[in-house]
Amino acid sequence: MSITHEDIALVISESIQDNQFDSALELLKGLRPVDIADAIELVEASLVWRLLERLPKRAEIFSYLDPEQQVILSRHFPRAILAKLVGEMPADERTDMFKRLDQEQRDALFPVLAHAERENIRKLSAYQEGTAGALMTSDYAMLKQDMTAAEAINALRLEAPDAETIYHAYVTDEERTLIGVVSLRDLILAHPAKLIKDLMISDLVSGHVDDNQENIAKRIARYDLIALPITDNNGHLVGIVTHDDAMDVASEEATDDFHKSAGVTTSLGNMKQASISLLYRKRVFWLVLLVFGNLFSGAGIAHFEDIIAANLVLVFFLPLLVDSGGNAGSQSATLMVRALATGEVVMKDWFVLLGREALVALALGGTMAAAVSVLGYIRGDEMVALVLALSMVTIVMIGCVIGMSLPFVLNKMGFDPASASAPLITSVCDATGVVIYLFIASQLLSNLAGV
Amino acid sequence: MSITHEDIALVISESIQDNQFDSALELLKGLRPVDIADAIELVEASLVWRLLERLPKRAEIFSYLDPEQQVILSRHFPRAILAKLVGEMPADERTDMFKRLDQEQRDALFPVLAHAERENIRKLSAYQEGTAGALMTSDYAMLKQDMTAAEAINALRLEAPDAETIYHAYVTDEERTLIGVVSLRDLILAHPAKLIKDLMISDLVSGHVDDNQENIAKRIARYDLIALPITDNNGHLVGIVTHDDAMDVASEEATDDFHKSAGVTTSLGNMKQASISLLYRKRVFWLVLLVFGNLFSGAGIAHFEDIIAANLVLVFFLPLLVDSGGNAGSQSATLMVRALATGEVVMKDWFVLLGREALVALALGGTMAAAVSVLGYIRGDEMVALVLALSMVTIVMIGCVIGMSLPFVLNKMGFDPASASAPLITSVCDATGVVIYLFIASQLLSNLAGV
Repeated sequence: MSITHEDIALVISESIQDNQFDSALELLKGLRPVDIADAIELVEASLVWRLLERLPKRAEIFSYLDPEQQVILSRHFPRAILAKLVGEMPADERTDMFKRLDQEQRDALFPVLAHAERENIRKLSAYQEGTAGALMTSDYAMLKQDMTAAEAINALRLEAPDAETIYHAYVTDEERTLIGVVSLRDLILAHPAKLIKDLMISDLVSGHVDDNQENIAKRIARYDLIALPITDNNGHLVGIVTHDDAMDVASEEATDDFHKSAGVTTSLGNMKQASISLLYRKRVFWLVLLVFGNLFSGAGIAHFEDIIAANLVLVFFLPLLVDSGGNAGSQSATLMVRALATGEVVMKDWFVLLGREALVALALGGTMAAAVSVLGYIRGDEMVALVLALSMVTIVMIGCVIGMSLPFVLNKMGFDPASASAPLITSVCDATGVVIYLFIASQLLSNLAGV
Repeated sequence: MSITHEDIALVISESIQDNQFDSALELLKGLRPVDIADAIELVEASLVWRLLERLPKRAEIFSYLDPEQQVILSRHFPRAILAKLVGEMPADERTDMFKRLDQEQRDALFPVLAHAERENIRKLSAYQEGTAGALMTSDYAMLKQDMTAAEAINALRLEAPDAETIYHAYVTDEERTLIGVVSLRDLILAHPAKLIKDLMISDLVSGHVDDNQENIAKRIARYDLIALPITDNNGHLVGIVTHDDAMDVASEEATDDFHKSAGVTTSLGNMKQASISLLYRKRVFWLVLLVFGNLFSGAGIAHFEDIIAANLVLVFFLPLLVDSGGNAGSQSATLMVRALATGEVVMKDWFVLLGREALVALALGGTMAAAVSVLGYIRGDEMVALVLALSMVTIVMIGCVIGMSLPFVLNKMGFDPASASAPLITSVCDATGVVIYLFIASQLLSNLAGV
């Protein structure tokens, strides 16, 4: 599937380069809006409009384009044409695009839009990024409680062209307060004369405009909803979030957490299109912090300089011991970060999980200690093996407890638990690992040192 | 939201422990099936049935229970009651549960089920885990192409109680070959006499029973579908995958990739319920491998023992340099693994991305080199600073190129790119880092050594 539309995109951009405009258009007509958007991604901005104006569903195609491409294209389109296109876009996509335009573009476009569209953009763009308000669309279907099922179906017929979904319709009173939901399934199953107020579900799952978009996506997934109604402070219905937008949010949030786990700060957008300077800026923070974190492990090493000089064999195992704490700790952190993100684990589980983690870490550390002591015996003697084994168990246990607790601590402090990144844990475990290793060595090997 | 149902769960299990069975039941009746399932998670198996039999939608509640709890409960339920409950479950959930029962339980349950249910379980359980076949349900709505829109709506009324969704209905010919899809939205908008064959979309997006469930979920997300029809080798319609199951799959796959990135092998199930021995087994592999990977870095250190002995200051920076390659490399790997998983990047992008990565790595390495050379100058002299700077740039660049390429290589070899885990990259970068650092040091410091 993905190979097919990539191949078609190539053929199309070749056709356009060869000035075979009509054959490109024919090929495009056979595709779905999202595939067309992909196919014309690389086409020059001045040609895109010539293609779009000859294609059906052009507002939908435009909505699927990369946000940055939308902004570039909107500079090339005649103002009246752009206004028409923007008018046809779904309310949420339209607002998102509008927010990305610069002031000059906004000033040019705004007066040409219909009054209702202007009002709609004003309202929707007032909500903060990342909230339900910024995610929702105002294109929903609405019913009154004293309608009959037959009247409701007729009303939905009229609303269908503008609503993102008519499979769930929301029932409001005169003040627009959300009082229930009715599914089209129940409507067509019901007797035509039955009243909406007797059909609707009043105890419905809803969200608030200020709710975090991640929680909205989780709620949609939990209750297997097609859409979730969103209300304002007065309980008035102001929008809906649809299942497909929820799926996109869940995927974005997973990507964000994934990136954070490796110490990549904040969102990158599309990986393929990210610039070198953007990638550099997102990645450099934790890496440089780690360098200065070394002040601590360096100080540890300096403190035990004599024991190292006397037992140079200790250096062989230094990278291993230092890494082991970081690796085991990162595993613990990763498991916790994801479990907190999916909601499998909540804050109050911390202490129970901490006890279990300590036992897992003991088992892991024990196994790794057994392995490393064999290597230590081969390269050194039984005292070196003992030092390595004891250090390994201690370092792995401390690493795991830190890695496991850090996401909870960050969460408690109001940070994203996903910020408990591998580089951060590595930095902390480096210094701890060095000190533990060399301290144990100094205790056990001191009487042998200085030989 | 999540706090509310957790609190209710507590109140309910307390009510049950206090033998206030009826008040617990009243509380449960106010909840949604998925919340009831959560609330009774901790209730003793023998009591669960007494609750379930007094609740509406009990098959749905049962479907939402943890798979292991379903198996335990099914031992406590009378056979006829279990058969009734299983009969009411959605076809996909029923099959999943059946597959988890042991042979004895299956033999007991199978003869009591209705013929159609037995056949259905036989068919659905034949598909391999992780494929569209294992994910799909056979509870879909079907129409014939010579029906009118009015007839079709009537047909859907009859199918509604059994179908998972009637918002998309699938059109098949006499051989059950999938020839089109029609939405309920289009049906109620159409003239009642219009024929389905003139209403349906023939060029529809579908999946094959053997398709990977991850690809199915991606397709549903890409085309914003409510459900995706699944066909067999003959093009016959055999099931549908619904948007809510696709969302669950996407979340599971993200969790899997997340865990793999930290070297946690294969799926753990629910984090909170995972046993110590399971956690140990899933985590120990890469950690112990890392210990033996140390044979290489240890050998590198042994080779340069003299230069270390002569310049003990080198040891101060060993943990840092070794970690830096691993950290930068893990970032690169994480970015690529996720980009490959979401489809933002495909195999053929490798070489283009490699060039960009090298430049990003140069910039990152340069910045880190500047930072570390300051520390090196403070603790050593300008030669040490130079050794550190050169080593840092080289190590970070090699780490990034390895980290970035590994997911592609694994993918090419047929492995999951997400197996390019932090511990694996750390192991590789450890050995490379040690050798590069000490080699550069031996070249630049050799004439000063042995003092």
